[in-house]
Amino acid sequence: MPGSSFGELFRVTTWGESHGRAVGCVVDSPPAGLELSEEDIQKELDRRKPGGKLSSKRKEADRVEILSGVFEGMTMGTPVSMLVWNRDARPEAYEPIKDLIRPGHADYTYLAKFGVRDWRGGGRASARETVARVAAGAIAKKLLGCFGIEIVGFTREIAGIRCEIDVREEDLKKIFERAESNPVRCPESDKAELMAKKVEEAMKQGNSVGGVVEVVVRNVPPGLGEPVFDKLDARIAYAVMGIPAVKGVEIGSGFSCVRMMGSEHNDPIVLRSGCVAFETNNAGGILGGISNGDDVVVRAAIKPTPSISIPQKTVNIRTMEETEIVVKGRHDPCIVPRAVPVVEAMVAICIVDFMMIQGIIPRTLLDL
Amino acid sequence: MPGSSFGELFRVTTWGESHGRAVGCVVDSPPAGLELSEEDIQKELDRRKPGGKLSSKRKEADRVEILSGVFEGMTMGTPVSMLVWNRDARPEAYEPIKDLIRPGHADYTYLAKFGVRDWRGGGRASARETVARVAAGAIAKKLLGCFGIEIVGFTREIAGIRCEIDVREEDLKKIFERAESNPVRCPESDKAELMAKKVEEAMKQGNSVGGVVEVVVRNVPPGLGEPVFDKLDARIAYAVMGIPAVKGVEIGSGFSCVRMMGSEHNDPIVLRSGCVAFETNNAGGILGGISNGDDVVVRAAIKPTPSISIPQKTVNIRTMEETEIVVKGRHDPCIVPRAVPVVEAMVAICIVDFMMIQGIIPRTLLDL
Amino acid sequence: MPGSSFGELFRVTTWGESHGRAVGCVVDSPPAGLELSEEDIQKELDRRKPGGKLSSKRKEADRVEILSGVFEGMTMGTPVSMLVWNRDARPEAYEPIKDLIRPGHADYTYLAKFGVRDWRGGGRASARETVARVAAGAIAKKLLGCFGIEIVGFTREIAGIRCEIDVREEDLKKIFERAESNPVRCPESDKAELMAKKVEEAMKQGNSVGGVVEVVVRNVPPGLGEPVFDKLDARIAYAVMGIPAVKGVEIGSGFSCVRMMGSEHNDPIVLRSGCVAFETNNAGGILGGISNGDDVVVRAAIKPTPSISIPQKTVNIRTMEETEIVVKGRHDPCIVPRAVPVVEAMVAICIVDFMMIQGIIPRTLLDL
Amino acid sequence: MPGSSFGELFRVTTWGESHGRAVGCVVDSPPAGLELSEEDIQKELDRRKPGGKLSSKRKEADRVEILSGVFEGMTMGTPVSMLVWNRDARPEAYEPIKDLIRPGHADYTYLAKFGVRDWRGGGRASARETVARVAAGAIAKKLLGCFGIEIVGFTREIAGIRCEIDVREEDLKKIFERAESNPVRCPESDKAELMAKKVEEAMKQGNSVGGVVEVVVRNVPPGLGEPVFDKLDARIAYAVMGIPAVKGVEIGSGFSCVRMMGSEHNDPIVLRSGCVAFETNNAGGILGGISNGDDVVVRAAIKPTPSISIPQKTVNIRTMEETEIVVKGRHDPCIVPRAVPVVEAMVAICIVDFMMIQGIIPRTLLDL
Repeated sequence: MPGSSFGELFRVTTWGESHGRAVGCVVDSPPAGLELSEEDIQKELDRRKPGGKLSSKRKEADRVEILSGVFEGMTMGTPVSMLVWNRDARPEAYEPIKDLIRPGHADYTYLAKFGVRDWRGGGRASARETVARVAAGAIAKKLLGCFGIEIVGFTREIAGIRCEIDVREEDLKKIFERAESNPVRCPESDKAELMAKKVEEAMKQGNSVGGVVEVVVRNVPPGLGEPVFDKLDARIAYAVMGIPAVKGVEIGSGFSCVRMMGSEHNDPIVLRSGCVAFETNNAGGILGGISNGDDVVVRAAIKPTPSISIPQKTVNIRTMEETEIVVKGRHDPCIVPRAVPVVEAMVAICIVDFMMIQGIIPRTLLDL
Repeated sequence: MPGSSFGELFRVTTWGESHGRAVGCVVDSPPAGLELSEEDIQKELDRRKPGGKLSSKRKEADRVEILSGVFEGMTMGTPVSMLVWNRDARPEAYEPIKDLIRPGHADYTYLAKFGVRDWRGGGRASARETVARVAAGAIAKKLLGCFGIEIVGFTREIAGIRCEIDVREEDLKKIFERAESNPVRCPESDKAELMAKKVEEAMKQGNSVGGVVEVVVRNVPPGLGEPVFDKLDARIAYAVMGIPAVKGVEIGSGFSCVRMMGSEHNDPIVLRSGCVAFETNNAGGILGGISNGDDVVVRAAIKPTPSISIPQKTVNIRTMEETEIVVKGRHDPCIVPRAVPVVEAMVAICIVDFMMIQGIIPRTLLDL
Repeated sequence: MPGSSFGELFRVTTWGESHGRAVGCVVDSPPAGLELSEEDIQKELDRRKPGGKLSSKRKEADRVEILSGVFEGMTMGTPVSMLVWNRDARPEAYEPIKDLIRPGHADYTYLAKFGVRDWRGGGRASARETVARVAAGAIAKKLLGCFGIEIVGFTREIAGIRCEIDVREEDLKKIFERAESNPVRCPESDKAELMAKKVEEAMKQGNSVGGVVEVVVRNVPPGLGEPVFDKLDARIAYAVMGIPAVKGVEIGSGFSCVRMMGSEHNDPIVLRSGCVAFETNNAGGILGGISNGDDVVVRAAIKPTPSISIPQKTVNIRTMEETEIVVKGRHDPCIVPRAVPVVEAMVAICIVDFMMIQGIIPRTLLDL
Repeated sequence: MPGSSFGELFRVTTWGESHGRAVGCVVDSPPAGLELSEEDIQKELDRRKPGGKLSSKRKEADRVEILSGVFEGMTMGTPVSMLVWNRDARPEAYEPIKDLIRPGHADYTYLAKFGVRDWRGGGRASARETVARVAAGAIAKKLLGCFGIEIVGFTREIAGIRCEIDVREEDLKKIFERAESNPVRCPESDKAELMAKKVEEAMKQGNSVGGVVEVVVRNVPPGLGEPVFDKLDARIAYAVMGIPAVKGVEIGSGFSCVRMMGSEHNDPIVLRSGCVAFETNNAGGILGGISNGDDVVVRAAIKPTPSISIPQKTVNIRTMEETEIVVKGRHDPCIVPRAVPVVEAMVAICIVDFMMIQGIIPRTLLDL
């Protein structure tokens, strides 16, 4: 358990620091016979990229390069290595505060663990690492598409403004289009505007806000997930809680289940087109840790960005004196919209991994 | 990833079905030199055992037997195998409904995955499997104690009644005593009574209620947890979401973070006795996935018990016809209090595993 | 990596000490829908059992009990837990030498690692642990049989007497019958007699001899094994070198390859019944770490049993003085014949694991 | 188990094809606080590089680039990503034979597994992948050095010429110097000449020869290795058998144990400077799978290079007709000398991994 790998048969290993030479990942391994181009990856990276008036001013083209595993436009069943060079790293911005441990950040804990830290923008703990997750997730998402599985993420809540859309009744493609059409990635346009306002207000104050990302996966085959510890929801919680800034993960009804009665929470079982189906989906598509064929619904609580320019109490770790810190740099006042593709990526990786374990995704697509 | 193992250097493998011959686990392996008796395990199992007017009427002495790994009262560094015989299994109660898939249960999903299921009380998907987790967790808890680490779980909420205690200000031993003194395991006695009333009401109706379990770990050394995927919170989420009936997991501020500003959520860093400390603990003791020395705070949302005796819609899986089901048997109207030691166990296992990975718990305690 | 688990999707965890209460294993998990009885396991255990004039006089009925994972005679896809009680343990035999570390045994190294050891007959390091491997291997072998794959082990060499049979030209069932018909498990009867003589001689002297076990697997589907580190041969070497007393593992031509020319060692590729085939099998059925459809051929070098009654130099670990030791007890003068089913078991576990990873063995046999 | 990762706490993931853009690895993760430069890696890569009259004419500078995990000349405890660009790849040499499956190579088995293969020089199955292992191994070797552990590999045998040196009596630095002073890496100069002659003869015939690599590790602390499946020797066998062209692995006495008596094979235990020591080292430094403090001795049988220019029988996989193949290109007539640093690398990785698991190598070297 060295920390930078995730997955069993579709295993993603990421590497790289925020202001190092590059960030990247190795995906060991997608099935052979998948058509794969850098463009497939790039379109997902572009969704994660900073840009727009509500996000960090760091300018990264974030062009992905595929270094292995693809030959003549097709995967070979061998590891796909990808990297993105860090172009607009400005470590000098961090020099003045390199001895101050930033509240809400991993500065102190990395020091406690390793006795040393890369102070340039958070180093390995920076959310820049998620570039690599999104690149790996792009392969997972492409694979899901090959099997008719849709996955869509969006902003469910920012700063107290909650989108009330009932995804189960909606066409996921439309949810996607509506969410992608605004900078906060909320599929309800009026709520999107209110959210944007909240973010702008926070930005003006040098402050930040949090929110909730929701990801829905449709057409998941029943039977994914393992009994006991490797339940589908357990692995998803593992994958999603490991994303920077996530403080909570829930499935289906999630925390709201605690105020429901059993008779209300149990999803009635019915026949639909002769198949087992569920009238409601409090289960979030997972029963006993195994997919039931209904939408898998995941929600992640994203904390307000810890980098704020309001003065905060901290300690100078060299002199061991209390002091104040003002975190400058190019930070997002709200990381929620940019977290959407990251949560999608991690959920997609989980589902694909289980599909390979279950034998639904074979080792080569050329036999299909 | 076969599903029934958890942990890297302290790896727990559980086995057994609800109405099979026994349930058990293998813990591979506690460090050598730990004094360990069946009594150490038994006292935790007794906390999980059914009994009392608010829980299942299944009568299991749940006597643990240690079959290996302990010699002359001391661990050897080799696997500790433990088992508990199933004495009061009454599979015949399930015979009449063996073709009906119970709403809220794993009946359908196990069938979808395996093409067959053990219909006797949920088989492997039954919460009876958690006997084995609690047994393994008892070893983990004993190890934590050797290193001065306290861990306490309690009921934070049942059926809308929320305990408002601020654990950070409290002596954990007192929290424990107060929680253990009532059948709902809530450390606030007036709330405990209200909760108990809610559970009784549900029971009378043949219905059920859910709630929130909270676990606090004090004196966790800073530096536990790995960067990126194997963050301490990620592994805890993995461990806890895999417990039957859990629909959400949160750390520290959890889902409430989404309505806070960054300036409010960031825990100010100060010196206390010359050491880095935090004025508040929204982080729940974890920053960047690594422990910061403050209390690790975990909350789990527990759904209302799916077994209810109110008629529910379902499908007869043999005839493929819609029908109704009434689930009889000896069920808990609220599983929350009995889930407390299970969540404690899983959190303890996570912490111990990371302490071994970090080298804080050595392979033998005899050198200390 | 706690040491007592092996395999990815077919994962075997063993536990137990030589003179503890029992030895056992958890197999997580065979596919659902496999008919499985204790008798299936027992017949393999009986092959490993001591007995006969050439082996240990320890009398163990070695009756296996299946505690989980099987319902109505069929696997459920959940962990199969099995145990064998230790009936004829006589720890008192070891009491007089408990401070003397036995040459060729793990006494010193367990002490070095754990600071303590179970001195009763080697404890966890005893070959008694292989009971559990054979039990797990029995399930693997049954699964191989379901897919038309044959696996047979036999004694290739003992004490310089080498069986020269060319297995590739033989019916494996006959090899099996012939090998099982004599106490040294050698399929050539004249060599078997010579071997037996060597073993008897060694026994009379209170000495011991070593040998070579060979295991052949026929009808292995091409495509098993993963590139690079998890090659089929690498995993087999891992599995087999971990068996007590094994000092070397080879595949196909093995060490004899070092004196061959490339033109001689490369197996010519031809068509047989329209399919790719090989004129010779120096590869031992594995090319680039992946099965090629030919016989998988594995050989293990087994050292002479370290327990001998001839006086040997050693150290008293309590007094730290040099001394002599005479190891009494009920030891095999040659462990080779009893190692045959153990090597078979480990190879079978490897092959089944890869068949599950490859999706050839599905998660449930009921769909086939 | 996706195949391209090895190790638990020191985990190496490699990627890349022979004629793709690059080969590389991620090492997750060396402890923090290790001084590490590209030069540390380069000197090991230079030992593996083709060049000299006895090896492949492929001209690769094999310059390594460190992309992450090192900051200000020191490791951070985060993944070290390294790559080497493929400069002198000439895939066109393989175009004429892309439908012919080469005897002794993985061409057929990759096709059987993945339905497609990268025909450019073996793709992922090429020994070019070992560049990445050697790079990772360079970090492991540097770590061993920090703890006073020496590791040296050399050629024990080529084409029937066997070096008879008794390493146990020698200074390892001298063995190293002598081995590195000749193109076959044999520390006995007269044998080295004979070996070189054999290789030249084979080269002239368009043929190839095999041999034995031996690696010795001195000053290994006692106590490394886990009971049962993850024995030190089992993991080494796993690591070494996974190297291309290896057909056998042995520890200490290895296969020669099969003709020894127990009284001869057991290493007598004595006191040396008041510590437990062994008069002989048939054990190869490992008893019961755990290091005993003596030299760890590993030998690997390397088959004759399968690429030979003598015509061989094969099959055209497109037309499915029998035909002949002549493998041109720039091949080593004997891969043994270049395999030496690869075996060293894999053994070093194993030892370091166990030292981290045992807590002997801490997570940060800065505390030491």
